[in-house]
Order: sequence, then C-alpha cells, then structure tokens
Amino acid sequence: MFIFPNGVSRISGILRTSFSGYYWLLPHPPCFLQCQSLLFHTTSQSLTDSATKEQLDPFSLVADEVSLIAQRLRSLVVAEVPKLASAAEYVFKDGVEGKMTHSKVLLLMGSAMDFHVAESPPQGGGCALAIEHCKRQHSLAEITEMIHVANHIHDGIVDDANKRGGIGSLNFVMGNKLALLAGDFLLSRAFNALASLKNTEALLLLGTAVENLVTGETMQMTATVEQHCSMEYYMQKTYYKSASLLSNSCKTMALLSGQTAGVANLAYEYGKNLGLAYQLMDDILDFTGTPCSLEKGFLSNTPHGIITAPILFALEEFPQLRAVIDQGFDNPANIDTALEYLWKSRGIERTRKLAEKHSSLAAAAMDSLPDSNNEDVRNSRQALVILTQRIIRKE
Amino acid sequence: MFIFPNGVSRISGILRTSFSGYYWLLPHPPCFLQCQSLLFHTTSQSLTDSATKEQLDPFSLVADEVSLIAQRLRSLVVAEVPKLASAAEYVFKDGVEGKMTHSKVLLLMGSAMDFHVAESPPQGGGCALAIEHCKRQHSLAEITEMIHVANHIHDGIVDDANKRGGIGSLNFVMGNKLALLAGDFLLSRAFNALASLKNTEALLLLGTAVENLVTGETMQMTATVEQHCSMEYYMQKTYYKSASLLSNSCKTMALLSGQTAGVANLAYEYGKNLGLAYQLMDDILDFTGTPCSLEKGFLSNTPHGIITAPILFALEEFPQLRAVIDQGFDNPANIDTALEYLWKSRGIERTRKLAEKHSSLAAAAMDSLPDSNNEDVRNSRQALVILTQRIIRKE
Repeated sequence: MFIFPNGVSRISGILRTSFSGYYWLLPHPPCFLQCQSLLFHTTSQSLTDSATKEQLDPFSLVADEVSLIAQRLRSLVVAEVPKLASAAEYVFKDGVEGKMTHSKVLLLMGSAMDFHVAESPPQGGGCALAIEHCKRQHSLAEITEMIHVANHIHDGIVDDANKRGGIGSLNFVMGNKLALLAGDFLLSRAFNALASLKNTEALLLLGTAVENLVTGETMQMTATVEQHCSMEYYMQKTYYKSASLLSNSCKTMALLSGQTAGVANLAYEYGKNLGLAYQLMDDILDFTGTPCSLEKGFLSNTPHGIITAPILFALEEFPQLRAVIDQGFDNPANIDTALEYLWKSRGIERTRKLAEKHSSLAAAAMDSLPDSNNEDVRNSRQALVILTQRIIRKE
Repeated sequence: MFIFPNGVSRISGILRTSFSGYYWLLPHPPCFLQCQSLLFHTTSQSLTDSATKEQLDPFSLVADEVSLIAQRLRSLVVAEVPKLASAAEYVFKDGVEGKMTHSKVLLLMGSAMDFHVAESPPQGGGCALAIEHCKRQHSLAEITEMIHVANHIHDGIVDDANKRGGIGSLNFVMGNKLALLAGDFLLSRAFNALASLKNTEALLLLGTAVENLVTGETMQMTATVEQHCSMEYYMQKTYYKSASLLSNSCKTMALLSGQTAGVANLAYEYGKNLGLAYQLMDDILDFTGTPCSLEKGFLSNTPHGIITAPILFALEEFPQLRAVIDQGFDNPANIDTALEYLWKSRGIERTRKLAEKHSSLAAAAMDSLPDSNNEDVRNSRQALVILTQRIIRKE
C-alpha cells in the first residue's frame, strides 16, 4: 500500500456513505484513484455499475479527501494567536457551517480533468508529478474554502446575521471584532497559499473572485429601490456573491491540470451555472421552505431582503407590487401584501425554470468536455452532472 | 519634451515645496529623473548643492509622483458601486488620513536602487524598459498604500476608533459595515494589482505582510496581562503592525529593480528599522505630546492601551507597577499612578534610545548599499538617511 507524503493512505479504506438509507463501499476517493491509475496503471472497480451510479451521492466520491482538507484547514489556522485560531477553526467544522461544498465540487472537477503524464516519465518522475498535481488540487480547494469562509464571516457582520448555515454565526458567537480579524486572517492565508502555487493566472482568477464577492455584498447593501427591482441587477449581484468564486476556481482547477483554454472555460461555465442554479433554488426555499428558512428570507440583511428572484418575477406580472416595495417592509402588512402577489403570480415557477436552465447549462458544460478513456475521470464527470440535478431538486 | 504614457510630463514643471519657510525648485521627481537620465543620458542639476541637501524635505523629492499615485488611487477605487468608491476615496485624501507615507518611502527606495539598462538596448527597447520599470515601481507603491489603508480601516473598526490621523475615521463617519467592505475592497484590489506584477516573490512578501498586519492586531486585541507586560511580545506586535508592511515592500521594491538578495535585505532592514523607530517615537508622543495625543494613547483600543514601550521600561525599573497593571485602567486613578511611575523612571529616555538605535540601523542599511555613480540614486539614498534622522526628531 502506497503512503501519501502527508501520511494518508492512498487506499483510503472503507467509506460508509449514507444515501437514501443505502450504504455502499468506496475504496478510493477519485483524486487518489486517478493518481493511482496514473502511477500503477490499475483500473478502478468501483463505479462501473450504472445502478450504483444512479444511487450515487456525488460528493461521496470525494468525502475522504474533503475530510482531509477540513482537517488540514483546522491545523492551518492554528496560528500564533490561539484565540484567532479557535475562531477560525470554529467555521471549519465539516458539515456544520461551511459544509465544505466548494472543496467537494472542486475536487470532483479536479478528478474530472484528464491529467496526463508522459508514457515513459523519467524514473520516479511520473509518480512525483502526479503527487505534486494532487497536492496542488488540494491546495486550490483549501484556498477556495478559505476565501469562501472569510467572505461568509464578513458578510455575517455586514448582515447582522445571528445564524448562518443553521448554527450561530461567528460574529454572533465571538463578536464582530474577532470575526472581522478571523476573516482577514483567512483571506491573508488564502492569498499566501495562492502565492505558493506560483501560477499568475490562478492568482488573477481568484483575485477577481474575491473582488466580486466584495462588490456583490456592496451591491446588496447599497442598492437603490430601483436597483432592487431590477432582475438584471439582481442576477449580476447573485453571480458576484454566489457564482464567481466557484466558477473562477473551477476554471483554475482546469488550468492547473494543464487543460486548454476551451476546457477551462467549460469548467468555468459549470461553476457559474451551478452557483446560479443553487442560489435561485435557495431563493425559492426562502418562501416555500420551513418557517425558519422563511424567517431567514424576510429578516435578512436589508430592508429589501425579501426582493429576490420570485418577487422580481411577480413584479413583472403585477407592476402594482412596486408601490408596496417603495413603501418598504418595515411594516409586516407590506410583507403579507407582497406574498399575496407572489402566490397569485408565477414567480416561484419562473424562478424554478430559471434555476433549471442554469442547471442544464452546467450539465451541458460537463457533457461538452473532450471524451476520456479514464473511467475515474468519467465517474467524476458523471458525479458533477448528478449534482446539477440534485441541486434543482434541493435534496 | 517627452510625454509619459499616462499624460504626465516627464519634465514635471516647477514644484514649490515649503520647508522652514524656504521655497526651492525641483524640476524633476527622481523616478522620472532616473528614467530620463537612463534614456537621454542627461544629468540632474537639482540636488548637488550640499546646503540644499541639508535643508531638504526628504519627501519633496517624490512629491509629484506621490500626488500622481494618490490621484490614481482615487480613480482606481471609483468602482462599480459608487457608495463604496466614495468611502474608499475618502481615505486617499493626500495629507489628511493616510498621508501616503508608505508611497513616499517606497518611491524614494525605488529611485535609491541603481537600475541598469544595457548600454545599447534594441531601438526603443531601453525606453520601453525604463518606462515599464517606473510603472512597476508606482504599482508597488499603490499596492502597499492600499494594503496599509485597508488595514487602517479595519483596525479602526476593531479599535472602535473615532479618530485616526486627526480626522474622523471611516468607520466613525460611514459606519462599521461600509468601512468593513471598503477595507475588503481595497485589499482585493491590492491583490489583483499584485497579481498583475506577475512576480511570485512580490506576492509572497506582500502576502506575508498582510498576514502579519492581521496577526499584530489580533495580538493586541487578545493579549493576556502577562503578554501585555512583555517587551518581547510588544516589539513582535509592533513589528507586525508597524514595520512588516514597509520592510517587505522595500525589499520587494529592490527585487523589482533587479537587485541582488543582499541589496534586497538591506532595503528590508531599512524599512523594518524605520517602521520600528517611527512607532517607538509615536509611543513617546502619546505621553509627551498634545492633550489630544495623550487622550488617544489612553483611550485606545484595549484596556491596556497605555502599556507601550515607555511604560514597559518603567515596569522594569519599578516592578510594583505590575500591581497597577493587573488592576487595569478602567479606574482613572490607576492611570495617574502609572504615570507617576513613568515620570520618575527612565521609560521615555530608554524608549527614545531604542528608537535612535533603530533609526541608526536604518541609516546604516542605506550606507551599506553598493556605491553608485548615479547622482539621482545618491540623492534618493541621502533623502532616506535624512528621513531616519527626521523620524527620531519627529519633525
């Protein structure tokens, strides 16, 4: 059994993953698998059965690697100042706040890229190259996760959030000041790790994503009523806040894997459309979900937090809704009136259609990738396509 | 007259700079001068007179360039979201909050480096190279200024500052949320500009500086009483907060100018020691300055904000001061008691000695640079040495 430099067995043992009450065995997470088949020319036996594929939780393919990354991030932030380290560690509890979704998608994207080493690499060269490649993939996933969490923390301060992702947000638990510093700390660590990748294009893409995140939050915070009522403005802001980081990271992942600009753009399109579809479905859940999620939608960051895609579509059908919006939602009666318009409009249905469109575009981007003979690559692509379907079902 | 690509005349006209009531003429700022002498083999006539040198305001050498950078930064931050742009612009008022000190030192450092082009560059090549070099120097100064201001803004939030640098701080004027976003925005712009430099070492050095700034602020915010009473802890924090950015930027400036690692380390030493000397003198001013600055020292960020170098030296002489520190400074009587110990100790004098030591080390770093035949280079080095003397006089 080959041991990875970080001490993790490349044959990572039995993974028990729950999906619809069904437990199945996955001996190898895909990045390791891909390295393994590159190095030892073995073939994965794991995911060939189409029945298994249908039941596949797409993220289970990378569960082991994501745990490893979460663990590494927790160690990484144990810095010189213990109080800050504990604050930063707080948000890397896998499955709690951050959910590590970015890492999961990115690792799948990494293994969906057909990484080649020369047929006859210099002795030991192929092995070293493949390991280095895996390390860079992990590093990019970590960087993206750190940027995401840093932004999440700062947004929590700006939005006066007391809960994000189901648990108390960092600013609520530890105060705004420590939360601000924890965000800054993570962002600076992310940029340092990015510098270590020594790839200018990666830096430009991720730098753009960070700038977009800030711009998106500022657009949300400072919009005029006119801007709040514009679907174009809303979609631009949604791209900045919910799709730019994922799309630019996916593109970077493709470039780090030595792919062409064309393939990198498909990876970008996947990330962008997945992010948009996810946010649009989240907008629907604010209205159709649990009372808790409904409250979240209504009590969100701005007096106009209620104005997301469903209300904007309702506004197109019922222009008289504008008068209610102009009055604002400090008065709960105005929320009720807006909801009345929403329920008699096709707002929810049209938002779902738009989410489905973006979901399809994401799947189409995966399907447009050049064919691969590598089964692990195909499995990862399949998992990414399944993910596009899951997102619009919000399972 | 040669016109720079950005529309600024390389022969920048008459600069009227006030120093001790004396007005003098400086036809060329040094970076332009250096480019000019590189391109046209002319010699500056400006600063040869030693009497003039003695009266030189070191920053006047780069006044024109700094104004240009301040103007560029104001334009740069006019982004897609006008409210944020106005917030960011607010802090780039030259001579008010930011003072552009980092830019001034860095531009002097840039022109203190002996930048060479080949004797017979390809037609037009020397010109293009020199212009590109100047642009990169300006870019580094802008990046450093943006990082400094972003940090300044976030520190203002953490410290609950209502005044920084003599005017209302951004968080006080525009609220914590917009200030937080403005800081994030500037930091992301800085990293994007850094990516455009396409220099991995620059990215690593500036990335380290950003991380140090955050670590320093966190050390200040979260220190135990034991740590507050440690001179070693204090100096480490002071390096992170007040010297790391300048030292790493000075080093980067040297590297961008194609200097050796040895020269780059001398530039680093200059920045580090200048930053430390500046902060130590600032610590003294908190006790000996105007009532306003005294108030600033006492009402600063933490309950232990009074514990800077002078008090730490006093504590060495009078260990019984520790009991007062342990009680904290919520009670003004404890401040009075601490001051009594300070005035009968050598705390101020020893802090000044330490500042002088660091000032001398900065000057020694400049004096250790390899000799240069270029008069403009020598003038800039001289200005940097004068600056080390000015700082300990706090003129």
